[in-house]
Amino acid sequence: MPKRDPLSAPEIAVALADLPKWRVVNGKLHRDFKFKNFVQAFGFITQVAILAERMDHHPEWSNVYGQVSIDLVTHAAGNAISALDVELARQIDEITL
Amino acid sequence: MPKRDPLSAPEIAVALADLPKWRVVNGKLHRDFKFKNFVQAFGFITQVAILAERMDHHPEWSNVYGQVSIDLVTHAAGNAISALDVELARQIDEITL
Amino acid sequence: MPKRDPLSAPEIAVALADLPKWRVVNGKLHRDFKFKNFVQAFGFITQVAILAERMDHHPEWSNVYGQVSIDLVTHAAGNAISALDVELARQIDEITL
Amino acid sequence: MPKRDPLSAPEIAVALADLPKWRVVNGKLHRDFKFKNFVQAFGFITQVAILAERMDHHPEWSNVYGQVSIDLVTHAAGNAISALDVELARQIDEITL
Repeated sequence: MPKRDPLSAPEIAVALADLPKWRVVNGKLHRDFKFKNFVQAFGFITQVAILAERMDHHPEWSNVYGQVSIDLVTHAAGNAISALDVELARQIDEITL
Repeated sequence: MPKRDPLSAPEIAVALADLPKWRVVNGKLHRDFKFKNFVQAFGFITQVAILAERMDHHPEWSNVYGQVSIDLVTHAAGNAISALDVELARQIDEITL
Repeated sequence: MPKRDPLSAPEIAVALADLPKWRVVNGKLHRDFKFKNFVQAFGFITQVAILAERMDHHPEWSNVYGQVSIDLVTHAAGNAISALDVELARQIDEITL
Repeated sequence: MPKRDPLSAPEIAVALADLPKWRVVNGKLHRDFKFKNFVQAFGFITQVAILAERMDHHPEWSNVYGQVSIDLVTHAAGNAISALDVELARQIDEITL
């Protein structure tokens, strides 16, 4: 199955079982992050930026000081969640270990 | 006048005269940026991040691929626009010259 | 020809014809960059970092304030210059246009 | 004492007692860092870049994949080690905790 195809609801449920810190909000994979200061937050943001470009799959995200919010959805899937979103979420979680 | 004090409406009007690409949206100094790809957008984001930490004044901002939206407001001013916001907007404009 | 294979001297000469700001120093593709301040230099560095990871081919590089020096060589080619080095040099040049 | 003045040899010895991972190499405060991949290394590099600009004191540094080498010295002190170098080393160590 192409990685940019929409996942079904059961497929998303299975994926979320391995991503306990992510949930579906407004049809997107969502996670909020909290760092103790801006420098730490931006070190994280930079790592995610590099991973995203490497996958050619980019987040919708926002930042204020130590807070980072990430939403993952696939435009090529009609703005549905795809396997690419799940994969990027997994790689982001690895950074924060 | 302390730099974190709220600016009056006339003071903001004067400041915006020098910042033609910024406008007040929801009580914040706002500007949208468009880059041709994610790599260029993130080069810009990193420069803004460094400037912001240097001023100890951080934006509310979001990014999707080549789009960056920045909102500037001063929490210590009761979420009003202060001279710090104007100064950060000026420094951001210098990057994009 | 695999992209990590060593290029011959004539192949390197051909590649350098399209990369007038690069030269071979100590067997590596080399270019020095000068920016007017650290913020500009680091905006450039970040863009190169993202490109490098995307290609899975990383520079040997150093920075002091506004100066950046980049050396490109391919370890898998026995520390010779390969087509990957030429490609990364081209992509770096595009950033600085 | 101005922070950019040269430290004496005894002052450097005292400072190094609190910086066990740094040593003086070629008259500069030196530390090597090793990360498991480029993404982690560059997350660290970005944090150091922000701290350096905030202090207006910039490292001499180099990177290859997961390796980062940092040398700290103060040009305004005649290329001697100053209190600024010690302070930047301390802040860098805090990132890597």
